Amino acid sequence: MPVVVVATLIAKPESVDTVRNACTKAIEAVHDEPGCDLYSLHEADGTFVFVEQWADAHALQTHSGAPAVAALFGTVGELLQSPPDIKVLQPVPAGDPAKGQLRA
Amino acid sequence: MPVVVVATLIAKPESVDTVRNACTKAIEAVHDEPGCDLYSLHEADGTFVFVEQWADAHALQTHSGAPAVAALFGTVGELLQSPPDIKVLQPVPAGDPAKGQLRA
Repeated sequence: MPVVVVATLIAKPESVDTVRNACTKAIEAVHDEPGCDLYSLHEADGTFVFVEQWADAHALQTHSGAPAVAALFGTVGELLQSPPDIKVLQPVPAGDPAKGQLRA
Repeated sequence: MPVVVVATLIAKPESVDTVRNACTKAIEAVHDEPGCDLYSLHEADGTFVFVEQWADAHALQTHSGAPAVAALFGTVGELLQSPPDIKVLQPVPAGDPAKGQLRA
């Protein structure tokens, strides 16, 4: 059963570039983690949103303890306006399978 | 330039099933809208998160005024704990192109 994560980080105004750099630096390593189907970053006005899909809960758990994540949150911890908002979700497939799910 | 939307709806506890039904009902119609690359629903504990990608800002604007969206928000308006949180974002591509973006 795949697991979807939507993680939101709101950077302090003076730290937007530093947070973006830390996020993009983490991405390449995370893509190599086992069970990573999707790990994508999006941005608007200093708000960064990761949309992730993991093959199963075990893969997500492993990711949560991986070095790339520790490095990311170690760097950005004090550069955010508030603690990260991390939602762990189940897909609700509907409609056209090509458009109704992040990854098949 | 594609546009990504992350829209979060938090249902009142007694309305979770009604909100889910309204959301899934909208999805099939939205998938047929022009420029809809992705319109996917996810859920945990009464929180519903749409992750969407639109071909460009014009497609998103057209979607915002489409009948399916009006019907959805008309139905769920009073069934949510708070107003929907709708974030309009730009992709920040990085790493493996197959895992670093919602849709190519």
